[in-house]
Amino acid sequence: MSRIAYVNGQYVRHADAAVHVEDRGYQFADGVYEVCEVWRGKLVDVPRHLDRLDRSLSELRIGWPMARAAVEFVLRQVVRRNKVVNGLVYIQVTRGVSRRDHFFPPENVAPSIVVTARSASPAAAKAQAEKGIAVVSYPENRWPRVDIKTVALLPNVLAKQNAKENGGKEAWYVDGDGNVTEGGSTNAWIVTKEGVLVTRPAEGGILRGITREAVLELVQKEGLAFEERPFTLTEAYDAKEAFVTAATTLVMPVTKIDDRIIGNGHPGTVATRLRDLFHTATDLKAV
Amino acid sequence: MSRIAYVNGQYVRHADAAVHVEDRGYQFADGVYEVCEVWRGKLVDVPRHLDRLDRSLSELRIGWPMARAAVEFVLRQVVRRNKVVNGLVYIQVTRGVSRRDHFFPPENVAPSIVVTARSASPAAAKAQAEKGIAVVSYPENRWPRVDIKTVALLPNVLAKQNAKENGGKEAWYVDGDGNVTEGGSTNAWIVTKEGVLVTRPAEGGILRGITREAVLELVQKEGLAFEERPFTLTEAYDAKEAFVTAATTLVMPVTKIDDRIIGNGHPGTVATRLRDLFHTATDLKAV
Repeated sequence: MSRIAYVNGQYVRHADAAVHVEDRGYQFADGVYEVCEVWRGKLVDVPRHLDRLDRSLSELRIGWPMARAAVEFVLRQVVRRNKVVNGLVYIQVTRGVSRRDHFFPPENVAPSIVVTARSASPAAAKAQAEKGIAVVSYPENRWPRVDIKTVALLPNVLAKQNAKENGGKEAWYVDGDGNVTEGGSTNAWIVTKEGVLVTRPAEGGILRGITREAVLELVQKEGLAFEERPFTLTEAYDAKEAFVTAATTLVMPVTKIDDRIIGNGHPGTVATRLRDLFHTATDLKAV
Repeated sequence: MSRIAYVNGQYVRHADAAVHVEDRGYQFADGVYEVCEVWRGKLVDVPRHLDRLDRSLSELRIGWPMARAAVEFVLRQVVRRNKVVNGLVYIQVTRGVSRRDHFFPPENVAPSIVVTARSASPAAAKAQAEKGIAVVSYPENRWPRVDIKTVALLPNVLAKQNAKENGGKEAWYVDGDGNVTEGGSTNAWIVTKEGVLVTRPAEGGILRGITREAVLELVQKEGLAFEERPFTLTEAYDAKEAFVTAATTLVMPVTKIDDRIIGNGHPGTVATRLRDLFHTATDLKAV
């Protein structure tokens, strides 16, 4: 079966899925995106993803490429046409195609929309989660508007590639105060020696992760000891547990940060429990 | 005549010039670019532009999409096929097409190359230069690697759009120390009340502009009083003259910064002379 993508009004073969070279996403990183988890053929947290897409578009003053309900329909169509049971669906919206000029294009230029989907192996993810991942710290060097989910991801690419070349699967940004801000494409969490879950507030400096929000709800529901505050890299080194959250990785235990083994070097009980709970919750809310 | 673009080995109609949706330039801003002036059918400062392209690619560890000489040939072909006499030629190189993943793609993924050209009116530019432009200050909010000419230009788009909406044609970034770093797509210069030309060193925080370098040579050749040092926005407000340089605008006088009229509100003598000299020098070196 050939993969199908949706590009500006048409379902096309993935191999033929193309945008104009003067699409502002290509020349200016002038666009935003979302990645939704597909779980047993259903989409997880779609309303939250579309709410965040709405906020990203609004912050950049890009219009919706079509009605929100139509976007949601296309997401489901692309998942269905690609027969994705478990995996993810990706949506990108840019400020459209216009002669290259930094200034916003004329009002009549329509935003571009691209939707793709692909399968991912729950078994592989489970195996990874049972092993945990290593993260590698990296000096925070992104612009302050990381609360907007833009495609200007080059800094993240370089931070994550650095992690990979140093044996890690994720980068953890550390700001000038020594605080961990977030991962290259995940939110960062620790469990202190005292058993308190800690993650940074999403009021600035990080993206308000959808999975982060969903995990926060589980934390509250379970009545786990929790503090929403910045934490330092040193505190993370000494933590009992660490983990990251994202739609693509869900709750993924971190067993090593730089050269430091976290806890006993195995996925922690809190992270593992949250991952299990997350799946149960997902079963209920995936639609 | 229909416009022609060069995309990954083929000359195509501009309307059909497309890249895959999983080109890393589109999804990650993982690419770099150059804009060369076309002057009387010839290209200005090609060796310098290709040197800088080489540095940008090298900093990001992206390979050349083809031999440098071949790239230069394509630049000239695209200019010729579009019958551009005066205007510009644009080249973009990205890390290529690969399944979406922040990490660098496998070694066998070839970089993408796109080249476009278009005409610009020297008469319109001259009229603009005789009038001067207004610039609008903007808080520096880009990542520190602005010395690399990447397509992660969303912050520049927003700064320049803000300038436009406040009556300006360019944004001037001002850092936390109150110093002007550079324009949204130009380098920034002033002439102090004492008649000293000032521009910021290109050792960090700005792009090493090709036109900036060419103007620096003219400044030296003419023996003009000159200091390469940071200057503050306040100093710029009180300057005798101000101007910006870029391959697209050459030397463009600035007659207003925010609400402050610069000098007598007309293009300054130093800026005007440098613009004239630049054209003469360009006649000699365009090839």
